[in-house]
Amino acid sequence: MTTNKAVVLLSGGLDSTTALAMAKASGADCYAISFNYGQRCNAELAAAERIVKSMGVIEHQVINIDMGKIGGSALTDDSIDVPEDEPEGIPVTYVPARNTVFLSFALGWAEVIGAQEIYIGVSAVDYSGYPDCRPEFIEAFEAMANLATKAGVEGESIKIQTPLMHLSKAETVQAGIQLGVDYSLTVSCYQADDDGKACGKCDSCRLRIKGFEDAGLEDPTLYI
Amino acid sequence: MTTNKAVVLLSGGLDSTTALAMAKASGADCYAISFNYGQRCNAELAAAERIVKSMGVIEHQVINIDMGKIGGSALTDDSIDVPEDEPEGIPVTYVPARNTVFLSFALGWAEVIGAQEIYIGVSAVDYSGYPDCRPEFIEAFEAMANLATKAGVEGESIKIQTPLMHLSKAETVQAGIQLGVDYSLTVSCYQADDDGKACGKCDSCRLRIKGFEDAGLEDPTLYI
Repeated sequence: MTTNKAVVLLSGGLDSTTALAMAKASGADCYAISFNYGQRCNAELAAAERIVKSMGVIEHQVINIDMGKIGGSALTDDSIDVPEDEPEGIPVTYVPARNTVFLSFALGWAEVIGAQEIYIGVSAVDYSGYPDCRPEFIEAFEAMANLATKAGVEGESIKIQTPLMHLSKAETVQAGIQLGVDYSLTVSCYQADDDGKACGKCDSCRLRIKGFEDAGLEDPTLYI
Repeated sequence: MTTNKAVVLLSGGLDSTTALAMAKASGADCYAISFNYGQRCNAELAAAERIVKSMGVIEHQVINIDMGKIGGSALTDDSIDVPEDEPEGIPVTYVPARNTVFLSFALGWAEVIGAQEIYIGVSAVDYSGYPDCRPEFIEAFEAMANLATKAGVEGESIKIQTPLMHLSKAETVQAGIQLGVDYSLTVSCYQADDDGKACGKCDSCRLRIKGFEDAGLEDPTLYI
């Protein structure tokens, strides 16, 4: 039997870690890819390192990209504050084209190693209003990916796997716990401190806290 | 009258420089974006700098991305030789998902500055067999781009402009000369030396030499 290879986008947060656990549970050989993209929060990357050590992957790449040069987001631009209340519409923490850029790198790596799948932990349920988390975006990316690559030309195909797409944050946490994910390793906060402690106030923290509450599970997150 | 803003992918080569000239001729305010992606040839980026100084753009971004980590191409992997004969199929100089990654960054910048157009100098005529130069790839990217961004959500749209798509290299050169492009500023060679002198032997050089010959125009390229 040939084992599937899967490239997994791993931010070090709750969702991508759950997606990694699901990719592993599917039996795929997992290749994790993380990005140092000028995000405020380097605690995320430290979390990604802890997670791959704990969960096991074939290889882990951390790609440096200076997305901050493009600007336009509170996550990469220090002149824009991370908000602590519920925003209307697309929030300032949205990084323009971030998932497109991340998936494009994952696509390049998938082509090099011969992976048939790319896992991304996006959800259309408890999400933050980012356009590039919607199923129609993922479908369009997959269609493009299959035209962009040698694999597509040669009749093979790349599948973008989004196992969390229709799960609430609570359902994601429940699924992850069943797969043995240690969420204390993960960092979701947009402005975690250097030790990985979360603010408990930003949009991402609020979604995470509510996820554990709704799931009726203990929140192992360390807060400042 | 509102002026269109266009992001132009500028490698410093013949094609992208012609695309920039065409974007300028359309009346758009041009924002050039170049990539330092671990390519062998830094003469390309030096050419891009000369070109933006000579032709004028509103802003020029050079984005550092470590594509070499992903590997798989003679252009970013020193262990693979650049071939000097006609290859069959997709050549080893193909960088996996390169145009996808470049267009994704351009998309992010377009979103931040409010540009409606992205210019890329790909051609389906005299091209090197790269899957991500084909019109069906560009159409799929555009469809994806309009789902990936705020603009798409808000009903605006991004157009991927490929003015060279149906031009031969000779037609591209003729069009550029008519627009006043100084091709001596450009570097197409995959292995140019530090002064920007071309090898005259690689796939890209051969296509360029033939383009000037077929156009009946003098080739201003400096060869080693």
